[in-house]
Amino acid sequence: MNVAQQLIGDHLVSGTMQPGEEIAIRIDQTLTQDATGTMVMLELEAMGLDRVRTELSAQYVDHNLIQEDFRNPDDHLFLQSACQRFGIWFSRPGNGISHAVHQERFGIPGKTMLGSDSHTPAAGALGMLAIGAGGLEVALAMAGEPFYLKMPEIWGVKLTGALPDWVSAKDVILEMLRRHDVKGGVGRIIEYYGPGLASLSAMDRHVIANMGAELGATTTVFPSDDETRRYLRAQQREDAWRELRAEEGAGYDIDEHIELSELEPLIARPSSPGNVVPVSEVAGQALYQAYIGSSANPGYRDFAVPARMVEGATVHPQVSFDVNPTSRAMLETLTRDGLLAPLIHAGARLHQAGCNGCIGMGQAPATGRNSLRTTPRNFPGRSGTQEDSVFLCSPETAVASALRGEITDPRSLDMACPQVADPDDPVVNEDMLQGPLPLEIARQITLAKGPNIASLPEIEGLPDTLELPVLLKVGDNVSTDEIMRAGAEVLPFRSNIPEIANFVYDKVDPEYPARAKSTGDHAIVGGENYGQGSSREHAALAPRYLGLRVIIAKSFARIHWQNLVNFGVLPLTFARPADADAVKQDSVIQLTELHDALATDLGTVTARLDGDTLALEHALSKRQIELLYAGGLINWMRRSKGPE
Amino acid sequence: MNVAQQLIGDHLVSGTMQPGEEIAIRIDQTLTQDATGTMVMLELEAMGLDRVRTELSAQYVDHNLIQEDFRNPDDHLFLQSACQRFGIWFSRPGNGISHAVHQERFGIPGKTMLGSDSHTPAAGALGMLAIGAGGLEVALAMAGEPFYLKMPEIWGVKLTGALPDWVSAKDVILEMLRRHDVKGGVGRIIEYYGPGLASLSAMDRHVIANMGAELGATTTVFPSDDETRRYLRAQQREDAWRELRAEEGAGYDIDEHIELSELEPLIARPSSPGNVVPVSEVAGQALYQAYIGSSANPGYRDFAVPARMVEGATVHPQVSFDVNPTSRAMLETLTRDGLLAPLIHAGARLHQAGCNGCIGMGQAPATGRNSLRTTPRNFPGRSGTQEDSVFLCSPETAVASALRGEITDPRSLDMACPQVADPDDPVVNEDMLQGPLPLEIARQITLAKGPNIASLPEIEGLPDTLELPVLLKVGDNVSTDEIMRAGAEVLPFRSNIPEIANFVYDKVDPEYPARAKSTGDHAIVGGENYGQGSSREHAALAPRYLGLRVIIAKSFARIHWQNLVNFGVLPLTFARPADADAVKQDSVIQLTELHDALATDLGTVTARLDGDTLALEHALSKRQIELLYAGGLINWMRRSKGPE
Repeated sequence: MNVAQQLIGDHLVSGTMQPGEEIAIRIDQTLTQDATGTMVMLELEAMGLDRVRTELSAQYVDHNLIQEDFRNPDDHLFLQSACQRFGIWFSRPGNGISHAVHQERFGIPGKTMLGSDSHTPAAGALGMLAIGAGGLEVALAMAGEPFYLKMPEIWGVKLTGALPDWVSAKDVILEMLRRHDVKGGVGRIIEYYGPGLASLSAMDRHVIANMGAELGATTTVFPSDDETRRYLRAQQREDAWRELRAEEGAGYDIDEHIELSELEPLIARPSSPGNVVPVSEVAGQALYQAYIGSSANPGYRDFAVPARMVEGATVHPQVSFDVNPTSRAMLETLTRDGLLAPLIHAGARLHQAGCNGCIGMGQAPATGRNSLRTTPRNFPGRSGTQEDSVFLCSPETAVASALRGEITDPRSLDMACPQVADPDDPVVNEDMLQGPLPLEIARQITLAKGPNIASLPEIEGLPDTLELPVLLKVGDNVSTDEIMRAGAEVLPFRSNIPEIANFVYDKVDPEYPARAKSTGDHAIVGGENYGQGSSREHAALAPRYLGLRVIIAKSFARIHWQNLVNFGVLPLTFARPADADAVKQDSVIQLTELHDALATDLGTVTARLDGDTLALEHALSKRQIELLYAGGLINWMRRSKGPE
Repeated sequence: MNVAQQLIGDHLVSGTMQPGEEIAIRIDQTLTQDATGTMVMLELEAMGLDRVRTELSAQYVDHNLIQEDFRNPDDHLFLQSACQRFGIWFSRPGNGISHAVHQERFGIPGKTMLGSDSHTPAAGALGMLAIGAGGLEVALAMAGEPFYLKMPEIWGVKLTGALPDWVSAKDVILEMLRRHDVKGGVGRIIEYYGPGLASLSAMDRHVIANMGAELGATTTVFPSDDETRRYLRAQQREDAWRELRAEEGAGYDIDEHIELSELEPLIARPSSPGNVVPVSEVAGQALYQAYIGSSANPGYRDFAVPARMVEGATVHPQVSFDVNPTSRAMLETLTRDGLLAPLIHAGARLHQAGCNGCIGMGQAPATGRNSLRTTPRNFPGRSGTQEDSVFLCSPETAVASALRGEITDPRSLDMACPQVADPDDPVVNEDMLQGPLPLEIARQITLAKGPNIASLPEIEGLPDTLELPVLLKVGDNVSTDEIMRAGAEVLPFRSNIPEIANFVYDKVDPEYPARAKSTGDHAIVGGENYGQGSSREHAALAPRYLGLRVIIAKSFARIHWQNLVNFGVLPLTFARPADADAVKQDSVIQLTELHDALATDLGTVTARLDGDTLALEHALSKRQIELLYAGGLINWMRRSKGPE
């Protein structure tokens, strides 16, 4: 077996490892960050969880560090209290980016991890099977439930040769994106192997595994080898090491080969990580910003090489040189090694350790000006500037361009390429990592909820009889963005369902939230492909809070359909799509003997519409029907697991 | 003469130095920062200025550094281009806080300075006369006009003795605030003198002069003595030094004495800098945040003492320890001297150099939690958190409290007080300070205006005849906040009059802006004390842009009345206040032979209101009438100075 198969096999709870088959795997560790973590903690509270059942769960505060008002710091204190309550490690604000800190302090070869962040796969650098998922799925894993997925294909990428000067790990993953674009990895696990690995440090592998997410891959894995051992020894955790290599003669579902010595500096043009070309093709364009750091280039060398490059120089007078340290430990190590001073001297704007501009929290570029970043993504507007022009590249390319004031192939600098090895004695500092409390003390912790943090609403189970007015009728292809929009006005309320519910459908029908509140239980009628787009769970939970019990549509988008059931809303389809025309806003739908109807295997439900008969269908599994009776997945978890 | 009198006497253009008399003084230097600077540059553009006429003008970017979208960075690029065009020094984003950088690189004993920032008086630390003013006044000074003010009283504060351990310069100014509260210095210049000065470094004096603004003082001055010379030598600018001391036997209008050895650690409680008590009185309260840095504690010692205090320790697990470096040069010096590492090790969240949380740009505290800051102000909500609880104190007190997790008198620590001298060899680095361009090159620079920056609108002069519908009638005590509100929705448009005009009076009458735009020239009728509150000029300019030509009120607040004239709006009062009742919205006011009426010394203007006669009055000076004919002060400057 290859490494990915060994990892899955070791954790398989159900299913067979045939690509496309549903499997369930046991989750050893979880990772949450603050932007998604507050909801996860509220879900744990609603489940009545006493203590997480993973081997290790860790919560990081790295996304929302700006603190323009009380909401960010209140979230931080809430998360800290929830970690104390549920037995979770808490990494304090400013301690650093989740993925890098987790690899340093908690990564263990051979373990599985589920994280509520799409770059969770970065941990594959150490031989972990690490997958990004939605908040509720991670909450379930924390409660001890297995994680369900379709068995991916395993895509073996053989690395041979060694990287030339001025070419680094970032160029390896950019080469993958150049070849396969942003959907090339969907349904696949990427496994790197071969002699080329010898020249890639554990943090170089992190760069590659992190941005496997940009290929759409389920995750990326590397073997656990001598470099993994060296790295863990440097982190004073050699006892966490175990060897993990593909078995002799192991094969892959798909085969790929990269000869490292043939790579050149690459760059992803605006506005997709898949728009990759050689740097030389865009060289000469003027630059507003050069940005280093982020989870996609968090290693020692990713700051040490820039520091050596700018030594004694100053960046170009028009360039904003933004330096985003990975973590406090990294800042300490760089300071100790004399590598911070050259960066500051050269003009660095030194920001606090965290995700920062990578997720649009500051450092937005000026209108129409080019920004070169070592971050993983350049989706349009992600930088904070709507009409942005963001390129993704290696630290070498970003810094060469900062010095010249225009996009520059680092090979064209009149400079020897700095040679930097990963240190064997990095500063290890866990002072800002707070460990789980003993259970007796944890049970006495009260969750610290600021005025913008509200417990999840109680959800009633599905009754046998419903009489529901139709409060809204919408057309085809309604997206979850229309149901529950994002944006600066709404996002701050994501830990506050009663408040965020006031924005449900507000751009479609501004009166809907008020009408729903005054009416209570009601139905919505939709067209084809109801709930397409983002997987956000608030688009199910917030309308449910407003009294939404049933949605009748011509068809549903898959993830939203699952989310509706998970939060206790019954999704039904018209048996005859043409019947949709007969339903008007304010029509009344009557459902009687619903439990009997759902109990049969027919998948049909007969309703009455304003006195007439209406034929409806459902595609619910027995487990999903149970969830609906319980009032959704959280209630079901609470009841089926019982108080502890 | 004392120091203040010498400074004024050396620059006197008109008037006599009797307290209360109007005087005009020549301005040698100006200081602008980015939050107010964009408007100043647009005013210079509108005046048609070719090049500033001061000895030195410097523009800093230290306020709006977060860059959540394109507007901040576009402002930065606009300011950079305007500096190049007009012959102004430009301090790049991240180079540091204006007041400290200015003192280091440009401060010259004996010079005057006008700045569009209320903490401009900090430069008094070097024996300058430095005054904060509105943007248009600073623009006029840059154009070579003198600055008008009422001759202040000179308040001599004699310092004797030396500060005890754990007591520092911040406690001196807190003592002044304890004694005299936030209005104690109004109409006064504070002059420190006496043997106690010997133990206060130039940057200690900066701390005291900076927060003289919190006493409401016009400014603060210190003599230029041996310490001033040492400081300038350390900054490699000894040739800028000249001696400046009070003459033998010089007296003061008011006398004060502080015996430094009797001071103890002080703290200003929420939410006024005047709420000062001994730290011991509030000791023991739990802490959320300890914040060091800002223009009120920007010196080497203000970071070095904290670094020594936390060496080998970690801040309390509940405390956010926010470190805000003064400047890049300071960061370089601290790094060189091994003082940054202990701060990071102890848990510092190290932010980029700038004003940051001091002006509500990030680092907001959690709801209801205590924040201890070395910043100059703790007005309610200034931190970004509406219901905040911010205390002002010395770095010693902030850091002692960070270590203990509760408000702590540093004298109660079991630790020797670190002794730190101001360095004689600080890092001097001007790479991020861009000097004025030669005139021929400057003239070819085009101002870089992003989509949110618009040139000031052209303003027509006052015609001889006006027929104006009354588009709005308001009551007594209307504030400039009601006319032109502040807040996150509106502030970003302050460099864009056409856009910000859409918010004029919008909370009073949401239809007013649209009505004004479709009507054009119009009048507004008000009650008593029209335009009270903040001095913001947008409350005059933006309505003028919408077509406001005349305001008739029962009485005006002084500053807004001046602003109206400066931006070409004619302010008139009812001769008989009861007549106000006769004016309705949509009444029509006719003014004929207006120029003749204004030319007489009677101060009366007769109008027709819907056919009837209406007796009105004005209190305009001849110069103000000229301004109105020209279409406001900017037009007047442009015309009276002519093209260069």
